[in-house]
Amino acid sequence: MQTSTVTFTRERTIRFSDCDPAGIVFYPQYFVMFNGLVEDWFTEGLNISYQQMIMTRQIGLPMVHLEASFRAISKMGDKVLLQLKVEKLGGKSMRLLMQCVSAVDGQLRMEAKQTLVTTSLMTHQAIDIPADFRAAITGLGFADAAQ
Amino acid sequence: MQTSTVTFTRERTIRFSDCDPAGIVFYPQYFVMFNGLVEDWFTEGLNISYQQMIMTRQIGLPMVHLEASFRAISKMGDKVLLQLKVEKLGGKSMRLLMQCVSAVDGQLRMEAKQTLVTTSLMTHQAIDIPADFRAAITGLGFADAAQ
Amino acid sequence: MQTSTVTFTRERTIRFSDCDPAGIVFYPQYFVMFNGLVEDWFTEGLNISYQQMIMTRQIGLPMVHLEASFRAISKMGDKVLLQLKVEKLGGKSMRLLMQCVSAVDGQLRMEAKQTLVTTSLMTHQAIDIPADFRAAITGLGFADAAQ
Amino acid sequence: MQTSTVTFTRERTIRFSDCDPAGIVFYPQYFVMFNGLVEDWFTEGLNISYQQMIMTRQIGLPMVHLEASFRAISKMGDKVLLQLKVEKLGGKSMRLLMQCVSAVDGQLRMEAKQTLVTTSLMTHQAIDIPADFRAAITGLGFADAAQ
Repeated sequence: MQTSTVTFTRERTIRFSDCDPAGIVFYPQYFVMFNGLVEDWFTEGLNISYQQMIMTRQIGLPMVHLEASFRAISKMGDKVLLQLKVEKLGGKSMRLLMQCVSAVDGQLRMEAKQTLVTTSLMTHQAIDIPADFRAAITGLGFADAAQ
Repeated sequence: MQTSTVTFTRERTIRFSDCDPAGIVFYPQYFVMFNGLVEDWFTEGLNISYQQMIMTRQIGLPMVHLEASFRAISKMGDKVLLQLKVEKLGGKSMRLLMQCVSAVDGQLRMEAKQTLVTTSLMTHQAIDIPADFRAAITGLGFADAAQ
Repeated sequence: MQTSTVTFTRERTIRFSDCDPAGIVFYPQYFVMFNGLVEDWFTEGLNISYQQMIMTRQIGLPMVHLEASFRAISKMGDKVLLQLKVEKLGGKSMRLLMQCVSAVDGQLRMEAKQTLVTTSLMTHQAIDIPADFRAAITGLGFADAAQ
Repeated sequence: MQTSTVTFTRERTIRFSDCDPAGIVFYPQYFVMFNGLVEDWFTEGLNISYQQMIMTRQIGLPMVHLEASFRAISKMGDKVLLQLKVEKLGGKSMRLLMQCVSAVDGQLRMEAKQTLVTTSLMTHQAIDIPADFRAAITGLGFADAAQ
């Protein structure tokens, strides 16, 4: 049951360099922040080194589909929570729900559903999700093993 | 009829700085490229200065919804075409179809549907699409006036 | 005496998004990191809100001179320390020594001397360093009051 | 004689995404622009593919020293010229003078002296400047052969 899965969360301050001449987050920066969240989720949440995944194991995690809704603006200096939840764990892909909410009052700033595939960085072709990824994701409660 | 609307196109070389340690475009950079395409579309395609829109008229054009599919990778040095088409022109928003295709063989690399709203940069609230925007978009054939 | 001044330090993980197709930090990202360090120094080190400085007080802190040496590479996943020290506190400017060192063995990765001026964001002209900045910088030991 | 060497120039529009909440170029973006200028200089000025240099020949061109002065601000929408001149051509390094000037009135916005070394991307150690680089740089007049 999805609602029982664990959410991985990190706090982040919105930086001057995240913002545009309108004084608010330049939206591609949300995706840069979420990329960092996936790194932290792997390394700190799943205990699988993201750095080794890319550099040593030569496994990539590119996006194939992305859907995002922007609900409220974030400004420089805002404290936000970046949250990640596994919605679906397939054979070669996973769908993540990513949210950015205010750390002060929980207001939803934006959310994205991202479908990532595991690929070989040699061929850029999809590969099965490695067994240790799957074991960590389900074993630690980030996704239901029965999905 | 949508299929009759004009497409705005610009060529772009994929830069070293667009690419990640996997040697391919870091996907948020596609959105940075598309943001530049919207700027050029306004300034060069619609003859409405994007710079004046933001700085003088204090009108913003933030995204409220985004859906993107990534079909094939782009590498450093690739020549690509960035293409923009108006799919829907509403009262306060417009939906754009943005595509990145190979300039060599037309291969679709990725595409995004982006819903943008016109806002006041004072209040960050939605405002009606200004009359000159609408006139230029329909008058120049980027969208059907009857939409 | 300069060597007695306090150093402000923050740890940072080198991100996938900081790195280039050579797998190492794309050097302009060091300056983005240092910009974040200055933000944290103001807000957390000096107890002067960087966000309010820019947005409310309309004071800018642009760079006028920069000199940087790159000594060793940093790779994705590296833990680094970002360090800031005030070398000189003038009437309208300050010179900062910024260093990035390995958090593991202290290896110097790169260092920069940055001269920043305080400006009015209305006119983009230099202004005197505000009294509260000066009091905090000297009072907290980041610079010698006699400079 | 240095003053006789050829300058490589490209025009660039300052983008919304280049600018910060103060509405002016966020200074690390100048270095991103200059990195693109070096790419164009290699590929279009020297007829040596930058993409093949990195990806096929596995030759890097990292910076070892950088000195920059910021003279005047650049704003979104500004047309600027990015200019490159070889100041010194050594055995394993070259020093470039990079300038950003207004395309309208030639006002100097900022300039940087950048010392780049040629490296092996396998070892990240310095290597001799390849013979074809040297021949192109001197043969096309970007540097004096006698340097």
